[in-house]
Amino acid sequence: MIFYQNTLGGKMKHFDAIFIGGGPSGIVAATTAKKLNPEKSFLMLKEEEKGLVPCGIPYIFHELSDISQNAMGPKPFINLGGEVINDTVEKINLEEKSLVTKSGKDFTFEKLIFATGSVPTEPKFIKGYRLEGVKYIKKSYNYMESLAEKVKSVKNIIVVGGGFIGVETAEQLALNEDKVVSLIEAEKFCLGRAFSKQMCQTIDTDIRKTKINLYTNVLLKEIVGENGKVKEVLLSDGTVIKADMVIATIGYIPNTTLAREAGLEINSRNAIRVDNYLKTNKPNVYAIGDCSQTTGFITGRTDSVMLASTAASEARILGYNLYDVSLTRPFPGALSVFSTVLNDTAYASAGGVVESVLEEATINYITGEFEDVDKHPGTLKDTSKLYVKLVVSPQTGIIIGCEMRGGKSIGELINLAALTIEKSMTVYEMLSFQVGTHPLLTTAPTKYVLIKAAENAISNIKKKCNCKY
Amino acid sequence: MIFYQNTLGGKMKHFDAIFIGGGPSGIVAATTAKKLNPEKSFLMLKEEEKGLVPCGIPYIFHELSDISQNAMGPKPFINLGGEVINDTVEKINLEEKSLVTKSGKDFTFEKLIFATGSVPTEPKFIKGYRLEGVKYIKKSYNYMESLAEKVKSVKNIIVVGGGFIGVETAEQLALNEDKVVSLIEAEKFCLGRAFSKQMCQTIDTDIRKTKINLYTNVLLKEIVGENGKVKEVLLSDGTVIKADMVIATIGYIPNTTLAREAGLEINSRNAIRVDNYLKTNKPNVYAIGDCSQTTGFITGRTDSVMLASTAASEARILGYNLYDVSLTRPFPGALSVFSTVLNDTAYASAGGVVESVLEEATINYITGEFEDVDKHPGTLKDTSKLYVKLVVSPQTGIIIGCEMRGGKSIGELINLAALTIEKSMTVYEMLSFQVGTHPLLTTAPTKYVLIKAAENAISNIKKKCNCKY
Repeated sequence: MIFYQNTLGGKMKHFDAIFIGGGPSGIVAATTAKKLNPEKSFLMLKEEEKGLVPCGIPYIFHELSDISQNAMGPKPFINLGGEVINDTVEKINLEEKSLVTKSGKDFTFEKLIFATGSVPTEPKFIKGYRLEGVKYIKKSYNYMESLAEKVKSVKNIIVVGGGFIGVETAEQLALNEDKVVSLIEAEKFCLGRAFSKQMCQTIDTDIRKTKINLYTNVLLKEIVGENGKVKEVLLSDGTVIKADMVIATIGYIPNTTLAREAGLEINSRNAIRVDNYLKTNKPNVYAIGDCSQTTGFITGRTDSVMLASTAASEARILGYNLYDVSLTRPFPGALSVFSTVLNDTAYASAGGVVESVLEEATINYITGEFEDVDKHPGTLKDTSKLYVKLVVSPQTGIIIGCEMRGGKSIGELINLAALTIEKSMTVYEMLSFQVGTHPLLTTAPTKYVLIKAAENAISNIKKKCNCKY
Repeated sequence: MIFYQNTLGGKMKHFDAIFIGGGPSGIVAATTAKKLNPEKSFLMLKEEEKGLVPCGIPYIFHELSDISQNAMGPKPFINLGGEVINDTVEKINLEEKSLVTKSGKDFTFEKLIFATGSVPTEPKFIKGYRLEGVKYIKKSYNYMESLAEKVKSVKNIIVVGGGFIGVETAEQLALNEDKVVSLIEAEKFCLGRAFSKQMCQTIDTDIRKTKINLYTNVLLKEIVGENGKVKEVLLSDGTVIKADMVIATIGYIPNTTLAREAGLEINSRNAIRVDNYLKTNKPNVYAIGDCSQTTGFITGRTDSVMLASTAASEARILGYNLYDVSLTRPFPGALSVFSTVLNDTAYASAGGVVESVLEEATINYITGEFEDVDKHPGTLKDTSKLYVKLVVSPQTGIIIGCEMRGGKSIGELINLAALTIEKSMTVYEMLSFQVGTHPLLTTAPTKYVLIKAAENAISNIKKKCNCKY
């Protein structure tokens, strides 16, 4: 590290690369790049000292005994000689290649990486959203530590928004005997961005089997307060629900204020525009993770996938290619692989091709479904039903999407489905796929669900085109 | 079905195709072919009325309460209009396209499919192998039903041969409190055909934690009898073990006596030679499953993989292509995907590339390993360690093999690894693979084991070639 005199006469510390943000993408990119370029000086600027495993956040409300059990940090980066400073970046000058932090520190850089994540959408259109007791699920250790503490003393909790974070948070909160938890979703079903209508219906039925009071197809009209505090919520159908706390999980937007001010190109979803190698429109400036653009793997259209696994993939590509692109990226599209567990049932999807997405992109498709047990014979203990639906392009037989419901084996089975999509595997090839099967671990080799679903998709293609093949 | 006069004046029933055998390959092939060719007359000749889920057999000794829970049969084939007769084929005349059964029935056929499976190797080289109390694990319902009954009244059981069937049978038997179970393996480790030496060592350590008395690197010298019954066994190191029953699981050989007599070409492993479409050297005669040849996916060398999942894959290819090859087979090699569970720990491998196979085929390789927890954060309940090793071709980075140890998620994770091998995926591509992750289902996105193992393989390639990339 070299010290420069800046134009104002102050001392500016110089780094070869500065990573703004210490979430999964920041940590993976910085660690990978540092490992490959040990001679370079790298700085990570992150706001808080402690970090959280993002997908583990809902579990701090029940499954995990304490938020500290869900901590993660940049230790692998530090161990390699990377520097970490807890501070907030206030202003960036890309011409001068310098930045200033909240605490007044100046830094110069050769390369700058935005890994600034996303922030919860505030329900500004709802009266009362600023009342005391309106909370969010933020990827901030300090905020969530304080929220987890506050949750302990309240009884009636309203979760607004039935996406993954809303549903998982509601599920975990409801597992605490002393809580009365209501979940409000404006659309007809929860998790509609990740699953087909048919699957969403099943999911809602499963949610209703828990202690959660689920309200769908209804708007939150007002958060009513008393003495500046949340007292109840009013829904568009006139329902009034008692509330001690409202947790708004209506969406997340890329945290790109800083990037916009610095002159980076921002897309229609508020994300930073990047090329296949995470390069922005400015030289030596990159963006990864939630703040960076995504496009659909199948559609090629701008979407807004904010998954830690997508972020980690971008971060690895950047880490390997920071100094020159020696590792080409086989495809830029986001595979959108989602999985969750509700009431001990697992759900997962891959491909990002729910009906609305397919319709909008006018993509023709055929499905193939199959259901069996996830052990064999099905008489074994702890056997769950396992349902799989493949979404297939009818002309080529290429698998473009998949959704499933079942036991815990789904966690990796969806990743197998994701690879079939990434590799443009066809349902015809799937017929000869040689799987490993074991009575205690999988379905039977004669009825392996992905293969049988492929067979059924082929039958459906034949029926539709009325041909033998 | 048409009746012909045969040369001897008797009536011969004619079928468009006759399937000899009703195990997984026979059932899948006959069902698939019948579904696609409903107008054709198909007959399945199987020896016994009832059938068994092959991989479920060890579990009839403990996990399943009764052998009837492990039954499977050709019902899907019958439902489609297929005919099933329980009889044994005694002689085949391929010139006349006819066959005769044990009960004296004559049939003619247009096409003939051998799905005759495999039979246990008898330890003919061991004195005493014909004593009463020397048993086998056969894929025969009647035999296994009787064995399961006999097992109930014996205490000291010797399992000879530490392959999958031997180890799983010993493990299940030992879970019965009243049994004293010894497992004898001639090689240094059990499961040496499926795992590296390093993994085998771990497996043996795990076996020793169960109630099984494991003897490795020692030969069974003699089965000693008294009044014609098994009394004890004598090992090559002088050890004497009390024995009420000896179960020999030293291997299986393709059941091809009938095929050989009929004039089919048989390979060096006693299996029927077939092309990519399961066609033998005689027109309109096919062979699938354990009785049919396999070659290594990576080596292209003759091997002898007898997996129900390999059999089912062959059977599907045949079923779709019985009348003309309209579904090409993307590759003929056996992927050799194995998985098992011992003492609640799961083990799996794919690729069939243990050291001895690689050495024999002089295949150069690099490995990449990684170990983490199978949930994230690791503080969650029921978290297991998950270890993965990738075997990689150093020049191209193509994944040629994989082995793993961990919790039940391995059952499908190994199938994901198998697909990377089938698709010649490289460790470089693996870096940007977008997986789905969930706290309760998988490792963290930042440390997804297959991706981290790929990273480590890349590091090892670099070290070996001393290059930056």
